[in-house]
Amino acid sequence: MKGIKSRMRILLCNDDGIHAPGLKALVDEIQKIADVDVVAPAREQSAMGHAITMTDPLRAEEYYRNGDFFGWAASGTPADCVKLALFALFDQYPDMVISGINQGSNTGINTIYSGTVSAATEGRINGIPSFAISLTSYRSTNFGPAARFAARLTLKLKDLDLPKGVFLTVNVPDLPEEEIKGVKFTRQGLAVYEEVYHRRTDPKGRTYFWLDGERAKEADDPSIDERAIRAGYISITPVHYDLTHYPSLDRLEDKVSDIFQT
Amino acid sequence: MKGIKSRMRILLCNDDGIHAPGLKALVDEIQKIADVDVVAPAREQSAMGHAITMTDPLRAEEYYRNGDFFGWAASGTPADCVKLALFALFDQYPDMVISGINQGSNTGINTIYSGTVSAATEGRINGIPSFAISLTSYRSTNFGPAARFAARLTLKLKDLDLPKGVFLTVNVPDLPEEEIKGVKFTRQGLAVYEEVYHRRTDPKGRTYFWLDGERAKEADDPSIDERAIRAGYISITPVHYDLTHYPSLDRLEDKVSDIFQT
Repeated sequence: MKGIKSRMRILLCNDDGIHAPGLKALVDEIQKIADVDVVAPAREQSAMGHAITMTDPLRAEEYYRNGDFFGWAASGTPADCVKLALFALFDQYPDMVISGINQGSNTGINTIYSGTVSAATEGRINGIPSFAISLTSYRSTNFGPAARFAARLTLKLKDLDLPKGVFLTVNVPDLPEEEIKGVKFTRQGLAVYEEVYHRRTDPKGRTYFWLDGERAKEADDPSIDERAIRAGYISITPVHYDLTHYPSLDRLEDKVSDIFQT
Repeated sequence: MKGIKSRMRILLCNDDGIHAPGLKALVDEIQKIADVDVVAPAREQSAMGHAITMTDPLRAEEYYRNGDFFGWAASGTPADCVKLALFALFDQYPDMVISGINQGSNTGINTIYSGTVSAATEGRINGIPSFAISLTSYRSTNFGPAARFAARLTLKLKDLDLPKGVFLTVNVPDLPEEEIKGVKFTRQGLAVYEEVYHRRTDPKGRTYFWLDGERAKEADDPSIDERAIRAGYISITPVHYDLTHYPSLDRLEDKVSDIFQT
């Protein structure tokens, strides 16, 4: 048992890179309530999913902002950053991992592609309370409400009593703080994107493809992450990394011999 | 309703790259029972997780083996390959997506890092029956048993009656076919790797880190993927991409107002 600590030590990470304004906004708020270590990708790593670097060496360099030490800029992905923090850079595990504030939502099917979420996954795999937080706009720099909510959630996370392996993905709508209607716990939407590749020809006459997609239209159900956000709420989805589909497992276990005459 | 087709059309992908012997072994077997299209990464993409390429253009080039057209070599990740197949390269969706045969197991926590699995995920997201298949050895080229099992599973997949969003990850032990004991439906192991970074210094005196890890020790429970394999069985885990932890959601929904006085 640990004694009561006066201040938590919190690891911050993101996938937009260590220069991103969302990370800076998060650091500024979390520093008010905890000691902060930053380990973030040196370059943007969006849509890296849960990638880890095994075939190449990783580097982590001290990164300064206006002459002050800000954190470690790592050559890898968000999951690499968390691994480096836990197993290479620091002597102690942090009390919490927070990933964000991402520029753009991490909802629905996109949750599985999200580098932001993968950093929180990596923290939780290693037993550390973790959450990912995103501002649901690709352009707005209105990070204040999300940053302040992150600090509030940090202080409340223990009260949520999340079981082993469960962590949170938080999406904050791009609204002035007073217009945010409240908090909703939601499930991950499962609607599929309408995807298109633009087929183009490069200056040498070779074909290339560029991905474009239209946001999927979710059913009109306020328990879905995307819908709660559109209605003006902060969406919090409890997620885990056990991909097993237990209802199918229970059903299939008894059928092995029917299916595969072995 | 589609009429009865004489032959299925199956999309094959992997993450070891289009040159990999595991993919060739899979093509050779699946071609016996179906028409095959191959779209695979031009270069190895292991541990790419569910990465998709959005910030760069993608290319897909015809790839020949011994003078015969083999498939499309794409510049992206396994998930990119499946997206390219569905939305750019071909006019029709395939009847099935098979990803593999991966060199090395995709079990336990590694399932979430797996590029092999991500290709099957991408197929299933788009409504296509899909599975990923791996040979649980990083060195062996004993792909025959896994390839023949893939063909068998292809013909049986419909009988499993998997619900929307559910697909399979298959791991075949590196044993002579006659020593494989049978098939077990399993759950994803959740034991955590013992991870270490080797800290080294490059020729210019700069520090770098290289990841090393010891396989996690799973509990002695034959319903866990890794354990079934060690016992000599082919492990099949039904998985899905809805990361929501529903037991927590149900519990938390009622508590919003207690936790966040809004």
